[in-house]
Amino acid sequence: MSETQERPTTARLEAFSDGVLAIAITLLVLDLRVPPASDGPLLNQIGKQWPFFAAYAVSFFAIGVMWVNHHALFERIAHIDRGLLYRNLALLGGIAFLPFPTDVLATYVRHGGSNGRVAAGLYGFTMMFIGACFTSLWLHVGRHRDLLERPMTDEALRGVVVRSSVGTAIYLGATLIAGVAPIVALVLFAGVALFFALTRANV
Amino acid sequence: MSETQERPTTARLEAFSDGVLAIAITLLVLDLRVPPASDGPLLNQIGKQWPFFAAYAVSFFAIGVMWVNHHALFERIAHIDRGLLYRNLALLGGIAFLPFPTDVLATYVRHGGSNGRVAAGLYGFTMMFIGACFTSLWLHVGRHRDLLERPMTDEALRGVVVRSSVGTAIYLGATLIAGVAPIVALVLFAGVALFFALTRANV
Amino acid sequence: MSETQERPTTARLEAFSDGVLAIAITLLVLDLRVPPASDGPLLNQIGKQWPFFAAYAVSFFAIGVMWVNHHALFERIAHIDRGLLYRNLALLGGIAFLPFPTDVLATYVRHGGSNGRVAAGLYGFTMMFIGACFTSLWLHVGRHRDLLERPMTDEALRGVVVRSSVGTAIYLGATLIAGVAPIVALVLFAGVALFFALTRANV
Amino acid sequence: MSETQERPTTARLEAFSDGVLAIAITLLVLDLRVPPASDGPLLNQIGKQWPFFAAYAVSFFAIGVMWVNHHALFERIAHIDRGLLYRNLALLGGIAFLPFPTDVLATYVRHGGSNGRVAAGLYGFTMMFIGACFTSLWLHVGRHRDLLERPMTDEALRGVVVRSSVGTAIYLGATLIAGVAPIVALVLFAGVALFFALTRANV
Repeated sequence: MSETQERPTTARLEAFSDGVLAIAITLLVLDLRVPPASDGPLLNQIGKQWPFFAAYAVSFFAIGVMWVNHHALFERIAHIDRGLLYRNLALLGGIAFLPFPTDVLATYVRHGGSNGRVAAGLYGFTMMFIGACFTSLWLHVGRHRDLLERPMTDEALRGVVVRSSVGTAIYLGATLIAGVAPIVALVLFAGVALFFALTRANV
Repeated sequence: MSETQERPTTARLEAFSDGVLAIAITLLVLDLRVPPASDGPLLNQIGKQWPFFAAYAVSFFAIGVMWVNHHALFERIAHIDRGLLYRNLALLGGIAFLPFPTDVLATYVRHGGSNGRVAAGLYGFTMMFIGACFTSLWLHVGRHRDLLERPMTDEALRGVVVRSSVGTAIYLGATLIAGVAPIVALVLFAGVALFFALTRANV
Repeated sequence: MSETQERPTTARLEAFSDGVLAIAITLLVLDLRVPPASDGPLLNQIGKQWPFFAAYAVSFFAIGVMWVNHHALFERIAHIDRGLLYRNLALLGGIAFLPFPTDVLATYVRHGGSNGRVAAGLYGFTMMFIGACFTSLWLHVGRHRDLLERPMTDEALRGVVVRSSVGTAIYLGATLIAGVAPIVALVLFAGVALFFALTRANV
Repeated sequence: MSETQERPTTARLEAFSDGVLAIAITLLVLDLRVPPASDGPLLNQIGKQWPFFAAYAVSFFAIGVMWVNHHALFERIAHIDRGLLYRNLALLGGIAFLPFPTDVLATYVRHGGSNGRVAAGLYGFTMMFIGACFTSLWLHVGRHRDLLERPMTDEALRGVVVRSSVGTAIYLGATLIAGVAPIVALVLFAGVALFFALTRANV
């Protein structure tokens, strides 16, 4: 029992994770820049910045859905071990990193050629990394069932792992399509977040 | 009951929302820029920046009032469903976005012509979006009374929806007036926040 | 009782305030800028930036002490009314604003003449505003004793009001001295925070 | 008892500390800058920025490990005194400062000569300061055992102090090596965090 008490409680781990997610989602706004008056009519300037608004909306929505999934995961967990702790830290590292590829994608999405492809690829790769962290967390829980608050059936566990892998696979597909058409990839990235939002039957 | 436990608790949703609001309200300060020494006497430079201080104060006060209203809403709620979750995410998206239109408004409010109008319009539109999210949240609660902690009378629910709609309508009016006089709009935007602060008889 | 439940609880108000203070104290680091390699040896450049490090340390320490005082205040409070809510919002507005005068002071403290005086004056004025908010919060509590968790003697209340007023007065003095010697003012500002840290016999 | 109640509770001190750590760890992303399109192919530009990604990863991981250690410390503590409060504030000051030396190190790590050494030295010094704060917190707890939730043996206390001192010593070594080879130091800094992560047998 003494050993249990020395483990970080899920409460404080969730609070820390919530903090990182809330900050990452709010820092996205710093990617938006006020156009200088010398650059012409404000309305035109804001219109030209549409990729920044689109990328803001997509990443905001994606982090929001990640928060819901993170919550659904940790609600099932009663105890934390080191494997969970550092897998969660890797996940947070990916999410906290997201404002950067969002900014890169918004800057380069209209560029044809390799720059647009690299930008969309960096965004997609970050999303795949985050998806893989989620899968890895669920697999770890599957191998250490004693961490769970209540028992889960093999079937239920397989369901969440499959769902998380499907998301990662769609991100892979979107990233490959990004090689041809970065704007299509942006739409696909939004679609994956929507997929995760809509398939959470239990929320 | 198992299903209830898998829903995000209001506690964690409130903590996440509080985080986003606290960060958005504090990031506003990044809109203020230290004038370079080469631009002339510091006092004059700070004086010329008055729209940034005014916009900081108005947006800070507005987000503070939003926090009070958000709290009043979620205090009444015992259970969370998907509709509530994503309406709340849209609300947070609008609030987290606010530092950008605040910066745009502060930059362009003294400009005559269309730029000032576009800036005030963007600010007003964001505020209307936030107001509409609040109305939509209350309407959703009205349609799903089982989410409430304690029953609310039809009259009480109509009261909060009307109040929230009135605010959105005033923002619409302020945005239209902004087309003529952006500085008047800034005063009106402050007035709406004050209206919401003063009409909360129950706080 | 229903009315009490609709008030924001002190728990959530403290959490929101803690969030704003934690963010303001951490955003201070954004005032520090990496010197470009073209400006000469890094060590010299960092040495020349000493006012930024000094201002970072003073403001960090000051916000830390404010957090302790804020906590000591709200620990005594059981109920929240509108007067407390908006006085607290004004206090948070002052604290969240602090990274800006900190940056201005660091930029201009070595300048002789009026610019240095204006910078130190802005910093001192912000500190006085924060001090006045604390005094106003305690005076409000003194007029509405029913907000308190446990009764306080008139003497104890007078003690905290006097202590908070003394701090504001010292800030006023430091601000006036800043008119003559901005660097001395920076030392005095650190001294006031130290005074508040050391006179909290009950922590 | 009244005196105990006026002390900040560990709950609120932990929440405030978690906030600062969560913000510091998330602000690291602001060190990453989108390369302008005019600077050549995006992939080359991102490749050239590798020290920023490496420094991001090392500092992210280091702050994550600090969070775990901070948690392990405060879980053992039931009461807070002034010594603990201000030692913790110094610790937070060091951690909140970390995005700055991270940015300096990333900017200068490839530079030969004294600039690279100074950058790695600043980073190492910050890490040593943080390590010394941890040691000082544990020593303070050792001198005031009444702050502990449950008694600790002298041996257990000596263990944590030694472990924390070893880390600080390794940072000192890494800083000295940084004088010769900044890139090696970056690897060593990552190694120390890994050492702390792996030697926490009780998590």
